[in-house]
Amino acid sequence: MTESTTARADGRTVDQLRPVTIERGWSAHAEGSALISFGGTKVLCTASFTGGVPRWLTGKGKGWVTAEYAMLPRATNSRNDRESVRGKIGGRTHEISRLIGRALRAVVDTKALGENTIVIDCDVLQADGGTRTAAITGAYVALADAIEWGRAKGLVGKNAKVLIDSVAAVSVGIIDGEPMLDLAYVEDVRAETDMNLVVTGRGLFVEVQGTAEGAPFDKRELDALLELGVAGCADLREAQTAALAG
Amino acid sequence: MTESTTARADGRTVDQLRPVTIERGWSAHAEGSALISFGGTKVLCTASFTGGVPRWLTGKGKGWVTAEYAMLPRATNSRNDRESVRGKIGGRTHEISRLIGRALRAVVDTKALGENTIVIDCDVLQADGGTRTAAITGAYVALADAIEWGRAKGLVGKNAKVLIDSVAAVSVGIIDGEPMLDLAYVEDVRAETDMNLVVTGRGLFVEVQGTAEGAPFDKRELDALLELGVAGCADLREAQTAALAG
Amino acid sequence: MTESTTARADGRTVDQLRPVTIERGWSAHAEGSALISFGGTKVLCTASFTGGVPRWLTGKGKGWVTAEYAMLPRATNSRNDRESVRGKIGGRTHEISRLIGRALRAVVDTKALGENTIVIDCDVLQADGGTRTAAITGAYVALADAIEWGRAKGLVGKNAKVLIDSVAAVSVGIIDGEPMLDLAYVEDVRAETDMNLVVTGRGLFVEVQGTAEGAPFDKRELDALLELGVAGCADLREAQTAALAG
Amino acid sequence: MTESTTARADGRTVDQLRPVTIERGWSAHAEGSALISFGGTKVLCTASFTGGVPRWLTGKGKGWVTAEYAMLPRATNSRNDRESVRGKIGGRTHEISRLIGRALRAVVDTKALGENTIVIDCDVLQADGGTRTAAITGAYVALADAIEWGRAKGLVGKNAKVLIDSVAAVSVGIIDGEPMLDLAYVEDVRAETDMNLVVTGRGLFVEVQGTAEGAPFDKRELDALLELGVAGCADLREAQTAALAG
Amino acid sequence: MTESTTARADGRTVDQLRPVTIERGWSAHAEGSALISFGGTKVLCTASFTGGVPRWLTGKGKGWVTAEYAMLPRATNSRNDRESVRGKIGGRTHEISRLIGRALRAVVDTKALGENTIVIDCDVLQADGGTRTAAITGAYVALADAIEWGRAKGLVGKNAKVLIDSVAAVSVGIIDGEPMLDLAYVEDVRAETDMNLVVTGRGLFVEVQGTAEGAPFDKRELDALLELGVAGCADLREAQTAALAG
Amino acid sequence: MTESTTARADGRTVDQLRPVTIERGWSAHAEGSALISFGGTKVLCTASFTGGVPRWLTGKGKGWVTAEYAMLPRATNSRNDRESVRGKIGGRTHEISRLIGRALRAVVDTKALGENTIVIDCDVLQADGGTRTAAITGAYVALADAIEWGRAKGLVGKNAKVLIDSVAAVSVGIIDGEPMLDLAYVEDVRAETDMNLVVTGRGLFVEVQGTAEGAPFDKRELDALLELGVAGCADLREAQTAALAG
Repeated sequence: MTESTTARADGRTVDQLRPVTIERGWSAHAEGSALISFGGTKVLCTASFTGGVPRWLTGKGKGWVTAEYAMLPRATNSRNDRESVRGKIGGRTHEISRLIGRALRAVVDTKALGENTIVIDCDVLQADGGTRTAAITGAYVALADAIEWGRAKGLVGKNAKVLIDSVAAVSVGIIDGEPMLDLAYVEDVRAETDMNLVVTGRGLFVEVQGTAEGAPFDKRELDALLELGVAGCADLREAQTAALAG
Repeated sequence: MTESTTARADGRTVDQLRPVTIERGWSAHAEGSALISFGGTKVLCTASFTGGVPRWLTGKGKGWVTAEYAMLPRATNSRNDRESVRGKIGGRTHEISRLIGRALRAVVDTKALGENTIVIDCDVLQADGGTRTAAITGAYVALADAIEWGRAKGLVGKNAKVLIDSVAAVSVGIIDGEPMLDLAYVEDVRAETDMNLVVTGRGLFVEVQGTAEGAPFDKRELDALLELGVAGCADLREAQTAALAG
Repeated sequence: MTESTTARADGRTVDQLRPVTIERGWSAHAEGSALISFGGTKVLCTASFTGGVPRWLTGKGKGWVTAEYAMLPRATNSRNDRESVRGKIGGRTHEISRLIGRALRAVVDTKALGENTIVIDCDVLQADGGTRTAAITGAYVALADAIEWGRAKGLVGKNAKVLIDSVAAVSVGIIDGEPMLDLAYVEDVRAETDMNLVVTGRGLFVEVQGTAEGAPFDKRELDALLELGVAGCADLREAQTAALAG
Repeated sequence: MTESTTARADGRTVDQLRPVTIERGWSAHAEGSALISFGGTKVLCTASFTGGVPRWLTGKGKGWVTAEYAMLPRATNSRNDRESVRGKIGGRTHEISRLIGRALRAVVDTKALGENTIVIDCDVLQADGGTRTAAITGAYVALADAIEWGRAKGLVGKNAKVLIDSVAAVSVGIIDGEPMLDLAYVEDVRAETDMNLVVTGRGLFVEVQGTAEGAPFDKRELDALLELGVAGCADLREAQTAALAG
Repeated sequence: MTESTTARADGRTVDQLRPVTIERGWSAHAEGSALISFGGTKVLCTASFTGGVPRWLTGKGKGWVTAEYAMLPRATNSRNDRESVRGKIGGRTHEISRLIGRALRAVVDTKALGENTIVIDCDVLQADGGTRTAAITGAYVALADAIEWGRAKGLVGKNAKVLIDSVAAVSVGIIDGEPMLDLAYVEDVRAETDMNLVVTGRGLFVEVQGTAEGAPFDKRELDALLELGVAGCADLREAQTAALAG
Repeated sequence: MTESTTARADGRTVDQLRPVTIERGWSAHAEGSALISFGGTKVLCTASFTGGVPRWLTGKGKGWVTAEYAMLPRATNSRNDRESVRGKIGGRTHEISRLIGRALRAVVDTKALGENTIVIDCDVLQADGGTRTAAITGAYVALADAIEWGRAKGLVGKNAKVLIDSVAAVSVGIIDGEPMLDLAYVEDVRAETDMNLVVTGRGLFVEVQGTAEGAPFDKRELDALLELGVAGCADLREAQTAALAG
């Protein structure tokens, strides 16, 4: 994908990510953590490591990794009621929590993890589009640190290769017929097609979730989106590597 | 995609659908209905047409189409607790309900529908893989009949083109490295990659939802799955047309 | 009770049941199942057999039989919200689930069943009055098959007499002063008195639940209703026997 | 029914009520109230009168009477968790609330009541069998006073005949083959058959709810129970009259 | 604090309690109980003693005392919806339950109690201000009796000193600039500052909870309120002693 | 209170606050916001301003200010389940939300605010003791900015004096017999008495909430705590003023 001449609201080219920052170790308490930002989207990711696994997994010699996603009530432009106050979790929250969990498990060897559980919490402090993809990208950093914490405590084998690859995620979409990378909120609401891609460090797909919000899309458009997204995830991979090296 | 020599448990070729039946007008009460089966998967789809729209849509001259998916407790091989008894809806149920709603809205011109609401209920009476894709495929038939009911009652314009296309859905997956169409439950649990495709009658994509359950997948595999799924949806389109002509 | 000259909407005599069909073994998964219809009322009854009993019953050498009743949202003439969506079960649903459970337990020797649990799910696919009585009548067939399944698997004693009698149920009511059997929905809403009777194959009462919806009733009317209902249950007993012999 | 020689734990004859007391006007706040006791069973019944009716009844020129039943956590021999803490109402509670409401509405002319609502709360302070029947019997007294309060305030017509009859309730049951009136808790748990009767002051039936807890029962037993219950309700009618005259 | 000349609605002086009655042993079932009244406020307090402790406390050689507070729907001047019907407990209820539990635990030596649990239920039958303070004062009496019940059953050591002090509570407030003791409801709603004090028999503070409902208060006013409350609790201590001696 | 020689874990004197930082305007979306830290305790406070008031307040010419408090699941040393997942809000959360709301309303002239609503969300990102007091102190800053936002938009009168005073809060406690200011978590768990004070800029009390966690306390100790807390709140007032001037 070559650079486009299309002007985006924030001056980016169509194949350009927003500024990405990863503040590793933000939390004083969690075994792994990262405050990640994709432009105005800020997500606090914490990884909680505990020995043992849920009852249904006991005695199988495998660990468990799961995730929960949520948004602060005023993370968005107008306030949303808290899900705790409403007494139930909405479909969107459920859906994203499940997506994050699957994305992380795709790069974890649960046998190498041993009978330990890691819960990743991704709380959106501020939202400006792409909260689920920022969450996955930051969660990977928190997860990596939590695994090393477990190794240091002797809960994970000294040489156990728990992470078999890295994982990052990005959104892509078609606006006015043009495929674009990493949509900000103002772009997201205008997109005809919206796609979230979860891609490993080796460039393989973990999740491809494309939805026609307006007109259905054809194979050529799909291919263009996939190409943009894979390149974006490669850039995110570099940011993760830098953060973990920091 | 040419026929494969791989033997499937039920003797199908890799690009073959299970037997599809659509019992249109199953319900004596609903404005549109269909009992659809994809092999052992049986889903009762009812469409309830009511005048008016939810408050947040009032006065915008548009209609609303939404869907709810659920499974009977013993639709599956072992019994699941009822969501009504647990007091909350699970993430999977939410996710599928939202998917069905989006799939149907993709082919509805809500302005042509006028200020009317159609609620589609998809209740899985028996499950054997592919319940969400059977639900979408059957829901389209129920929806089409409910719109005609509204037209007959004068609630929808005589010549209003409410349905701008048809829509069907099918699952595809990779098993032992081989892409296959319309997975039965025994196949689904073994699949390395699982994908649900929602495709319009014109062959355009509404949803592409691929997930690596085991190893991540590459672009070549993705393309093979897309090709299989588009062909499968074309076959389903024929079954829908036959049912609606019946 | 002799035949009456009163014309009913569907042409039945006052002491006549609606057409009864019992499709035994409808479900491919459940250990026992029946799709029963009383005219336009259709209820899918599945019996799930599992080894073991709830904690409070453990070690007492007795089994457990319980039931859950529910209605699909568009089983009725206008759509009802799902109880899972509302997040709680209504009083009517609770009441009927409890009634079905008691009716079945009245003919089960739980010691002969051994420490096994049978859960009966009665889901109303279409409603036209008498859903609870159809549910009990069909549930008995599903229950009988589930017990035989347990016997075949060696979970129930070879000669254990688990069922000490059969059980069926029917509604009766007074309309325009006239007692009638098996009320359809249009009759039910007009009835001054409404009664549900659960009667064993030997003609004994398990439940007598009569309610004056309009004017209170006297002993003579009560006796007429009881007589009609006992005769109706004897007819249902024949339909059950035929289904189980099939 | 003649007196029996059977000794009951508390020395009563089989056709004898426990001591009944009705403390009318117990509550300083409610428009009508009664603290009723049937032996060790004590139920506080309050009637709250408010102008207006629920939305679904507005403009029909009719009033509404409804009831809610509940038990204090330590009303019984061992403590039960609060339904508010569990976050949901149990089936038994629902069932009894609905029964009380129907019983009261059977003697109310809702047109004469006008567009007013009366909510009856029946809270069991101490339980020793027969809580639902004590609740109905006491609720009638609270209801009668609330109607008079409304009349005094000019909300109910000066000569409107709102109560068309009185209503009381009692339990009957068969223990060791012998029919008995007004079962205390120790009797209730031993009863083979348990029946609750709601009877008007004129001796007509509003509810007949008989359940075989042990062996099913025949017509002769049913008749004996009905006779006992009707006589018991006549005695309760006298206690109500005395309280309302007090 | 000297007597004031201010006339209160019920003729009390500013430092005077309303009439206090404690009906000890009101419940036939509970191991300890008291029906306490502070003027028109009536609270039924029951203490349920059970062997064993919650799982999180097992094996620590300590007992557990906890409390639940609730109000009947028509305890107040207008009816409140039941928390069980709403499906959740309100903040005020939670807050008061926690307060009562802390107040009682402050005078209990949980080691001396041994691995036993006492649950105190405080149900407000009628409310006229000060329900939480009446609840604490009555709960102490129920608690003391439950402990003696446990001792008599051999579940508590013969000489174990479980109660290390007594505890009572009272409200104080500032109305029209004047500090007053034990506010009735009509006073409470007018108070600029409202304070609840929990004080031991030795005159030490367990809880000081003062809230400015209107104007904030200064140190001098705070001191006046504390002095009034400590004296009031001493009077309540006498009523408790008399009841327990009765 | 003069400085003490007691060594605290973090080297503070007994009358010294932890380092306080207030990052005003942290949120890009909220009408007012502040990220406040009291040492390791970090609370994000956002104020959402909306025109109109809740239904029960409509037409009274007054505004409404309310607050919600919550904690991220891994704000603490070990992970807590989300209240949204549990489906209900705990007592502690309710209690603190109510406290924050009362504290803010104590310094707001709701008539001057006009018929507008301000909802303050206080989300604890990291907890190390004193989360409720940090929340109140930061919420005041967010509130002040939201009011000015409303004034700039013309929703609040140009010269309306909405804030009649400022408000801050701090915890105090007794550890090993010594009164101390602003307890960190390790101090809080050891405190015999724990008190939260809400004090206005003018030095008046809005809330005094003292609880004996261990031994009850006497008047002398109470006075020492009050003195420490009032001085601490004066220091917090300066930090607020500096932030609002920034």
